[in-house]
Amino acid sequence: MAEPGMGESGGDNAVATGPRTPALGVLVSGRGSNLRAILDAIARGDLRARAGIVISSRAGVPALEIAAARGIPTRVIAPRDYPSRAAEGAAVVAALSEAGVDLVVLAGYARIFDPCVVRAFPYRILNIHPSLLPAFAGGMAPKPQADALAAGVKLSGCTVHFVTDEVDAGPIIAQVAVPVLDDDTVERLAERILAAEHTLLPEAIRRVLEGHPRVTGRRVLFDHR
Amino acid sequence: MAEPGMGESGGDNAVATGPRTPALGVLVSGRGSNLRAILDAIARGDLRARAGIVISSRAGVPALEIAAARGIPTRVIAPRDYPSRAAEGAAVVAALSEAGVDLVVLAGYARIFDPCVVRAFPYRILNIHPSLLPAFAGGMAPKPQADALAAGVKLSGCTVHFVTDEVDAGPIIAQVAVPVLDDDTVERLAERILAAEHTLLPEAIRRVLEGHPRVTGRRVLFDHR
Repeated sequence: MAEPGMGESGGDNAVATGPRTPALGVLVSGRGSNLRAILDAIARGDLRARAGIVISSRAGVPALEIAAARGIPTRVIAPRDYPSRAAEGAAVVAALSEAGVDLVVLAGYARIFDPCVVRAFPYRILNIHPSLLPAFAGGMAPKPQADALAAGVKLSGCTVHFVTDEVDAGPIIAQVAVPVLDDDTVERLAERILAAEHTLLPEAIRRVLEGHPRVTGRRVLFDHR
Repeated sequence: MAEPGMGESGGDNAVATGPRTPALGVLVSGRGSNLRAILDAIARGDLRARAGIVISSRAGVPALEIAAARGIPTRVIAPRDYPSRAAEGAAVVAALSEAGVDLVVLAGYARIFDPCVVRAFPYRILNIHPSLLPAFAGGMAPKPQADALAAGVKLSGCTVHFVTDEVDAGPIIAQVAVPVLDDDTVERLAERILAAEHTLLPEAIRRVLEGHPRVTGRRVLFDHR
């Protein structure tokens, strides 16, 4: 296991060895660049957490290789292997629970959860969306980026939010803006937004783990002590 | 006339004295802080333009005093003095045309135009809106700011766009983001957005006057030569 901080993981010995290192469950579907950004932030010491499990909705994707190369347990939970979305969701909940996950992070996960997953981890699931929500909600990449480009906005960006039963409408944790340039294509804009995601997502995880977030109305407020 | 650059205004002598200084028509309804920002940008030499006329939809507002103090012609065109919005709009068009206005700027103007005004100045009317459009369109301040706060976004901002017949939906010229802070009130957020408007609006006017904007689909593209 190459995870820094793992040695601190105290379990029942938490009092003796300091607070237990929070375990993340990271859900992926593709190239895993946001997973890599999270693992790099942990390795740099910018994020006090460990990756407890990486779950992919697709077999054979690069994200699984990234996880395996760093000694992180992986699982493939693919829709076609389950008779219903509820059964698929139950498998996800079981895998996350068995791994002792404290916080679930959707890092390019191309599935919409069955409500049972959201109920199992209330305000403990984070998603990153490639737009400044509430603008350009809905749809998987590259649609939000294409929609932003077509709408003529001069700023787009990305949003980390808690996952609720409403798609792309959960309380917002963090946002960052990126410029839309006159000579942008969808691909160029998507790459620029993705680069911003790589900074925003680990930072948002850190805020949630350390900032005691509370949801008031639609706002997420943090401790600033 | 205290307007710097006014002396450069060549009229028929444009060839001899350099390009004619573009004339702005600025429409206001209140305190005139964006009008002041435009005039200050002109005075600093950051914006090569002159204010040809300031039109207010309300008598006795501070914006009119700001204009008068700088020797700019002013007019009050108040809704109650006209039998219809079309008649009010026709009076606005006449006043702008008589003043030889090249570009119309709505700077906190609390009226929605009759279509005749938009037709008279196609893609020559700019508005500033206190949100990152398309998010929180519609309504006069402080509603967009209050809506952004209630929605829990972590970034809001302001947008300069061309005025079309669709309210707050014209092609976007420029945007800037501002943070929404945990301890914000509507008033604090509105003040922070307004401070950003004071920089964005003169800059957007400059881009329109100098950048040869062209509208492609919903996008506004500029010359970068």
